[in-house]
Amino acid sequence: MQAATRDEKRNIREVLLDAASALMRELDTIDIGILDIAARAEVNHGMIRYYFGSKEGMLMALLDRDVQHAIHQLDNLFTLDVPPVERMRIHLAGIVDTYYRIPYLNRLIQALVRDATTERVHHIAEELLKPIANAQRRIIEEGIEAGKFRKVDPKLFYFNTIGAADGLYSNRFTLSAVFGGMPAADDELHERYKKQTVDTLLSGLLA
Amino acid sequence: MQAATRDEKRNIREVLLDAASALMRELDTIDIGILDIAARAEVNHGMIRYYFGSKEGMLMALLDRDVQHAIHQLDNLFTLDVPPVERMRIHLAGIVDTYYRIPYLNRLIQALVRDATTERVHHIAEELLKPIANAQRRIIEEGIEAGKFRKVDPKLFYFNTIGAADGLYSNRFTLSAVFGGMPAADDELHERYKKQTVDTLLSGLLA
Repeated sequence: MQAATRDEKRNIREVLLDAASALMRELDTIDIGILDIAARAEVNHGMIRYYFGSKEGMLMALLDRDVQHAIHQLDNLFTLDVPPVERMRIHLAGIVDTYYRIPYLNRLIQALVRDATTERVHHIAEELLKPIANAQRRIIEEGIEAGKFRKVDPKLFYFNTIGAADGLYSNRFTLSAVFGGMPAADDELHERYKKQTVDTLLSGLLA
Repeated sequence: MQAATRDEKRNIREVLLDAASALMRELDTIDIGILDIAARAEVNHGMIRYYFGSKEGMLMALLDRDVQHAIHQLDNLFTLDVPPVERMRIHLAGIVDTYYRIPYLNRLIQALVRDATTERVHHIAEELLKPIANAQRRIIEEGIEAGKFRKVDPKLFYFNTIGAADGLYSNRFTLSAVFGGMPAADDELHERYKKQTVDTLLSGLLA
């Protein structure tokens, strides 16, 4: 084997994460095997150990990548000069998009903190979850101050948000039962769900 | 061993289901062992096979019992002579109560339909999930007709509802991260969550 260049290395790493993400989404489970991930990525399964140490290390890297992406979007959102209602609308639409793209997110968090080291638990809580919850709280407080939002508890609203956004994507069998056998949401259904979910949560927030 | 009377039999069956339900809630997982369930119920683990055939049979009986309880409450709700907004308020509060009591509900459904027989899949879809989704649709249509609700898609609203209601209870680690180390919702937090969730969803529904 020739030594990989830095770009190739980054590429294999990303291809592995993409493969794991795609399998979890398609199979609707976080219980996927390293052989299947390697096959999907079209690399030798030893690459998983090489790049991530273990499957668990790879799942942690995937969670980091997924959530850092969301945090980065939120950082950008605060650079926009828009009123609070509009900022919240963009934020809520972004959350629904996130769960459509990565419906395994909540399950992955749950699995990765079970029997985890104190360091990992601290990292997930402080560096992944709190920044998102705090960013949303900042938008809510901005809206309350401007007299646009009613005085909700931002912490509770956060759980309404992640639950409502996730509802259609993490309950595939119920989706199939309610939507006449449809196996999972497609782009069209996702767009309709996003619109109604954002309208509902935002109306629920308005003063 | 003396032959059990009919009342004793019903009792052991219910005690086993109560034990399984309590363990799933406390341990925040549906992966519980029959020895632990039997120990919690203080009966011999052979009783699980005797009453339910298998652990899976017992989990299916638990899902049936939990959901039939919710369907029964909905039937009662339709006998009340109240306006649509009030009926929806009671219904939404009932859903949040349900997920607080049985936070494993969505995970149990997902596990029981995986690799299940056609008959079971049909039963869960037609006799457990659709009656609840249809009852909620009936309340929404009643409210739209009365000019009280905006014209939402009842199917999409259903997923907002089960997601938002479940949000606080099925994401315990996120709860802990956001609420300063609290391990799970207690009665006081549940009451606050219920009030805000019902207010938010109902405001989102009003015309």
